[in-house]
Amino acid sequence: MRTVVWKSLGESQKEGLMRRPAITTGAQTQASVADIIADVRERGDESLKALTQKFDGVELDSIKLDKATLAEAEARLGEDIKLALRQAYDNISTFHRAQKAQPLKVETMPGVVCESITRPINRVGLYIPGGSAPLPSTVLMLGVPAQIAGCRKVVLCTPPPVADEILYCAKLCEIDEIYTLGGAQAVAAMAFGTQSVTKVDKIFGPGNAYVTEAKRQVSLAANGAAMDMPAGPSEVLVIADAGADPDFVAADLLSQAEHGPDSQVVLVTPAPEMAEKVADAVQQQLTTLSRAEIAKQALGSSVIIIADTLTQCVSISNRYGPEHLIVQTQQPRDLLPLLDNAGSIFLGAYSPESVGDYASGTNHVLPTYGYTRTYSSLGLADFTKRMTVQELSDTGLQTLGPTVMRIAEAEGLDAHRQAVDIRLTKLQQTQDSEDSLA
Amino acid sequence: MRTVVWKSLGESQKEGLMRRPAITTGAQTQASVADIIADVRERGDESLKALTQKFDGVELDSIKLDKATLAEAEARLGEDIKLALRQAYDNISTFHRAQKAQPLKVETMPGVVCESITRPINRVGLYIPGGSAPLPSTVLMLGVPAQIAGCRKVVLCTPPPVADEILYCAKLCEIDEIYTLGGAQAVAAMAFGTQSVTKVDKIFGPGNAYVTEAKRQVSLAANGAAMDMPAGPSEVLVIADAGADPDFVAADLLSQAEHGPDSQVVLVTPAPEMAEKVADAVQQQLTTLSRAEIAKQALGSSVIIIADTLTQCVSISNRYGPEHLIVQTQQPRDLLPLLDNAGSIFLGAYSPESVGDYASGTNHVLPTYGYTRTYSSLGLADFTKRMTVQELSDTGLQTLGPTVMRIAEAEGLDAHRQAVDIRLTKLQQTQDSEDSLA
Repeated sequence: MRTVVWKSLGESQKEGLMRRPAITTGAQTQASVADIIADVRERGDESLKALTQKFDGVELDSIKLDKATLAEAEARLGEDIKLALRQAYDNISTFHRAQKAQPLKVETMPGVVCESITRPINRVGLYIPGGSAPLPSTVLMLGVPAQIAGCRKVVLCTPPPVADEILYCAKLCEIDEIYTLGGAQAVAAMAFGTQSVTKVDKIFGPGNAYVTEAKRQVSLAANGAAMDMPAGPSEVLVIADAGADPDFVAADLLSQAEHGPDSQVVLVTPAPEMAEKVADAVQQQLTTLSRAEIAKQALGSSVIIIADTLTQCVSISNRYGPEHLIVQTQQPRDLLPLLDNAGSIFLGAYSPESVGDYASGTNHVLPTYGYTRTYSSLGLADFTKRMTVQELSDTGLQTLGPTVMRIAEAEGLDAHRQAVDIRLTKLQQTQDSEDSLA
Repeated sequence: MRTVVWKSLGESQKEGLMRRPAITTGAQTQASVADIIADVRERGDESLKALTQKFDGVELDSIKLDKATLAEAEARLGEDIKLALRQAYDNISTFHRAQKAQPLKVETMPGVVCESITRPINRVGLYIPGGSAPLPSTVLMLGVPAQIAGCRKVVLCTPPPVADEILYCAKLCEIDEIYTLGGAQAVAAMAFGTQSVTKVDKIFGPGNAYVTEAKRQVSLAANGAAMDMPAGPSEVLVIADAGADPDFVAADLLSQAEHGPDSQVVLVTPAPEMAEKVADAVQQQLTTLSRAEIAKQALGSSVIIIADTLTQCVSISNRYGPEHLIVQTQQPRDLLPLLDNAGSIFLGAYSPESVGDYASGTNHVLPTYGYTRTYSSLGLADFTKRMTVQELSDTGLQTLGPTVMRIAEAEGLDAHRQAVDIRLTKLQQTQDSEDSLA
């Protein structure tokens, strides 16, 4: 890891340091994905089987997993891992259940009632990557909020071979249907539906460049499916002061670095000696890791920034906008009101990123690539939508009507004015005739 | 308006009726927009002045409006329109203030504290279309939530000439800067910044095909700006039973139809005689409207659907997913629990769409084109982002640590396991040495 002193940098060097490496989805990837989507839309299951044969080398009898397979997977798993996954499930459930929106009802004027009501998105699709390491934790991070939101149909795609841990988590989250599908073809199947695959309204989950591009394409298509958030490589920024434990800081940097060669790892500290100690500890711990080669590549583009003060550390972090922000200072909570543009924040010596990745209760699907400026940590809200309601009494319309009519006039929208006028006129007639009867 | 009987239709006819007309952004529009964005990024203000000269026929001395212009606009306006706009401002403020998220703090396990905190998006840009009718109401719908969210910088673009009402609403919402800019060039300027225009993080507001395409392009660009929601033509669906007032229903259909020739207007009723009465009333009221020609075009592709029952009316509405849903039945609130996939719902005879368009308090920026299945009515949440926080005590990590380590093992992520292990080991050492001292 190279070390730089923030104040010695010019503005363009600072800018360069804060910039992420460009993600370019080549025209070829875009075209391949478009072809896959078109084929799945046209040929349905037949296309899915052919593409799974081609990309995963697996001949599928059935696209949908049956209940027996789920029960077998559960039986094969040891009690210790099941217990750990259930504990994670419980904590994630507790935190996401607390996010339930309260119904909102406000009388903005006498007789004018406005409401906001929240409803589950009906059908959601969860994508769980396969590859070298299975990610049962991601099943929980997507499946738990879908379950709590009350989505009516929750389906899951993951490429073959499917890990037992994934199936066990799917059972905990009461996923309705599981398909042995990966890549762009899985996204296409969920967005448009096939003979075997249920069409969904929104697709969640991480994936490689093809999956990401497919999510983007189906989200732009008419009658396709919305997507959770834009993707980018995973990141951590650690703010550590002179009192931090360099071994803890190094371990956190490495746990980000092992995610992939493109992981972004940044340490910001006001203490030059901390910079040195952490760099040493990183080298030492690196030797013990099974994924050391991946971590080394990530560390090659990582940086330690020496700032003047803790306040400057905070501004640097706010400017960078990290996905994960770890604060290892003497009074971490004091900094919280100043922190902005972060996906998830880890306060203090005993809150390593891995607790949030798995089991503290927060979601590990987070905005990255600077999207923290505008996007939120994934939560219950992403599995629901808000509708507003208004109900006016006759008196309410009589009070508010003239305002509406005056603005409609200013905007030159006659019929808007008329829709109020016709009601007020009839109300007046009714009142007049009641008065004459009285 | 043509009338169809739902039960007499085949599935593909039903499907066709529920489908929106395709929106295609031609390759030429895409390319023109890309050129405009590139030019604004390269030449900044110089480009903006040239493009405004070209598209709006106006030579700008200054891109930014000065305070004197705002004061003059206010002075020119009559008291009645100012009063109406202030009333709308008050109601919209009341409803959006009630949407403030409460801070969330949960102890998921002893010593494991998880939080969700909400922060304003720092810099937001509001786009207000110009053209035949100025839209001061849209300034309120975007400016009020930005103001209540506490966004630090709120800027507004609107093409010349700028209506006094727009400037007055901007003053009520305490907009920081106003630029006399329209079209794709306005979006490009806000997304990337120029000498005169402040760069923003997210862009809100309606616009023509060029504006929509520009929002899409800058939202995909690295270091561009996020956007509010996908756009489509405005829509209304009215559910009316035999007891509804056909004049009211007709007025509501027309107030949607006058928006533009591509407006979608649907009436669903279980009462065949209501269908006839409304169709007659529409013809009658049409003659009195200044925008009758526009409304006629919209009505050309509109439809009245006769259903078997009110329950079937509800399913048809849920399937269509209208932007605006008006319910004129005897007991409209009884249907509310069954209604889904709508942007904003108007209950009862005295809640015409125009009250929500202007002044009841709800937002008039709503998902359309079937996006109601996954997107929400614009609200305070769209001007903020959620970050999660976790803080574990030493005991918290000792309790949760083994769970995290076990899942990290299952996912083959060594360093994730290590980040917990290194802490637990040191805690154990400290306790051992304390025990031996005791």
